[in-house]
Amino acid sequence: MFAPLQNDTFLRACLRQATDYTPVWLMRQAGRYLPEYRASRAKAGSFMGLATSPDYATEVTLQPLERYPLDAAILFSDILTVPDAMGLGLSFALGEGPRFATPVRDEAAVAKLEVPDMEKLRYVFNAVTSIRKALNGRVPLIGFSGSPWTLACYMVEGAGSNDYRLVKTMLYQRPDLMHKMLAINADAVAAYLNAQIEAGAQAVMIFDSWGGVLADAAFQTFSLAYTQRVLSQLKRSHDGVIIPRLVFTKGGGLWLEQMAGLDCEVLGLDWTVNLAQARARVGGRMALQGNLDPNVLFANPAQIEEEVTKVLDSFGTPHADTRSTGPTHIFNLGHGISQHTPPENVEVLVRAVHAYSRRMRTGTPH
Amino acid sequence: MFAPLQNDTFLRACLRQATDYTPVWLMRQAGRYLPEYRASRAKAGSFMGLATSPDYATEVTLQPLERYPLDAAILFSDILTVPDAMGLGLSFALGEGPRFATPVRDEAAVAKLEVPDMEKLRYVFNAVTSIRKALNGRVPLIGFSGSPWTLACYMVEGAGSNDYRLVKTMLYQRPDLMHKMLAINADAVAAYLNAQIEAGAQAVMIFDSWGGVLADAAFQTFSLAYTQRVLSQLKRSHDGVIIPRLVFTKGGGLWLEQMAGLDCEVLGLDWTVNLAQARARVGGRMALQGNLDPNVLFANPAQIEEEVTKVLDSFGTPHADTRSTGPTHIFNLGHGISQHTPPENVEVLVRAVHAYSRRMRTGTPH
Repeated sequence: MFAPLQNDTFLRACLRQATDYTPVWLMRQAGRYLPEYRASRAKAGSFMGLATSPDYATEVTLQPLERYPLDAAILFSDILTVPDAMGLGLSFALGEGPRFATPVRDEAAVAKLEVPDMEKLRYVFNAVTSIRKALNGRVPLIGFSGSPWTLACYMVEGAGSNDYRLVKTMLYQRPDLMHKMLAINADAVAAYLNAQIEAGAQAVMIFDSWGGVLADAAFQTFSLAYTQRVLSQLKRSHDGVIIPRLVFTKGGGLWLEQMAGLDCEVLGLDWTVNLAQARARVGGRMALQGNLDPNVLFANPAQIEEEVTKVLDSFGTPHADTRSTGPTHIFNLGHGISQHTPPENVEVLVRAVHAYSRRMRTGTPH
Repeated sequence: MFAPLQNDTFLRACLRQATDYTPVWLMRQAGRYLPEYRASRAKAGSFMGLATSPDYATEVTLQPLERYPLDAAILFSDILTVPDAMGLGLSFALGEGPRFATPVRDEAAVAKLEVPDMEKLRYVFNAVTSIRKALNGRVPLIGFSGSPWTLACYMVEGAGSNDYRLVKTMLYQRPDLMHKMLAINADAVAAYLNAQIEAGAQAVMIFDSWGGVLADAAFQTFSLAYTQRVLSQLKRSHDGVIIPRLVFTKGGGLWLEQMAGLDCEVLGLDWTVNLAQARARVGGRMALQGNLDPNVLFANPAQIEEEVTKVLDSFGTPHADTRSTGPTHIFNLGHGISQHTPPENVEVLVRAVHAYSRRMRTGTPH
């Protein structure tokens, strides 16, 4: 059904296999910093107009690949499609973040929640298949979802928040309701990611964007446990090919030892984490992904190259044999790319990752 | 000049000396959650009207002490008084955060910066003396300032930010300018805190509110080094009494080992940090302060008591001898108290800290 994969560097690194260079992709790589994206969005009329149309989603997913030699594509979609399918009424006001018409704030609202009919998310799976076909085997396609806890944050707050007061009030005052919501979210996310895999996603990533706002102990109970509940339900392979699973918790650096116990292949790290220390703490159990501060992309080319080099040096040389033993590194930003990024600086970053990481492997980095 | 101190529990805990119970105070304890504070602010007309009047600052600083048996008072002021005295023009629009009329964004603006004449901050030192007198020895008074990096964030951004793009662009593109600004900020903060000590502050705290947004390595270079530059200039004692120095970096949990090398007595911790692990990582070198999630105060009384107990148990029993050897704990929130907090819940928290921590010391906590 799909063309054979020509560049498997990202997938090999996910599975801790040797690669000729460190693969690179960027969170939110299909986005507002690209003029062609802004043109597509203007045609589509809105963000959700892009995300709900398989044709538009395909168009914008491929845009950064036309410009840069990235090693993976990621489905263009939103992390809040699942609660939208639960009937919460997602919308994006111009210049603002997402908003739910019907937030979930009491027992009655939680009682109404259920795993949505995946047919309501058919537009996402159609986009996955369309993108996979359009990629024609160039690079692998990553599917994704928000984590159960991150979805719950938006479902309770109804929008972004800077103190998470409403969702944490429910957590501390009614942990029974919070657990009920998180269990439903986890089962919904698992079904959603499995359907993306069946539609053609070659790896899946869980974005725990708000795990880092939780207190120690609360993170383990209300975020990590439900991320694991998702992972334990995911398909390990499809059509005989292993599907790597990536987990990214923004602000989760303190809990790396516990995250290393997750049943997944890759941990994403933000820029606060020292990669050498992370590699030592996680051991050989997982590949690591990250972690350049996106604001480095506002510096000049020589400075960007220097910061890229520091990140690669901090991780150090990956295991260079062909057996699946060594820790490996996937280069990425520590969070999504800023809409204000000069597109030409992304080119500098991607070329620097490839060139320097090739030289690292031959022992002549400088 | 000042009445003798009746409750030295907080100061003893800062110096790692034995206490009968764990002292407690709350960041932003004089604030909007108190109806009497809102009445004072209405009389004063604005936040800066409160902060610039020694009488009003004294009135609101003492308000939480009238309600709760807290073990310390903290100067009512703002972390941005120093850049305001540098001429940047601080204002607070209603319902918004602080804003500077003249942000510092280029070489010319940095060239104009200098350590301000401390006479411009006389209103703060007058407030310190007025509060100290009004306290009449009840509990010690903590003075404070923003850290050099945190001041720089506001000075460059001109207001709060969610991505710190402008200040990080300067950091990555013009590190020379950033270092120059931070050196001036550090020297200004040191002069400012020393003047607070001379005016009557019995401990001083540096709030590195935005240290946690920096990348690993950038934190050490652009925040920690300049916090240390402040600390190295501070008076160690005044009128023959030691002045403890506290440092709080929100989101700094990953860098505890390095923060343990600071020349200060107490490290403040946010709620993401496990206190038992922090105690092990910092060793006996410093007292630790923190770290309940402020959102726990939206739960019901029994739940608040349980969460207080968990924090105290996580730290464990402090050293119980009278020599200055053991790590000690000062109870606090992991960040400022929310303006939406029900005041009666603060009473529950303070009583629970005192009661349970007394029982811990006698070996009969439950």
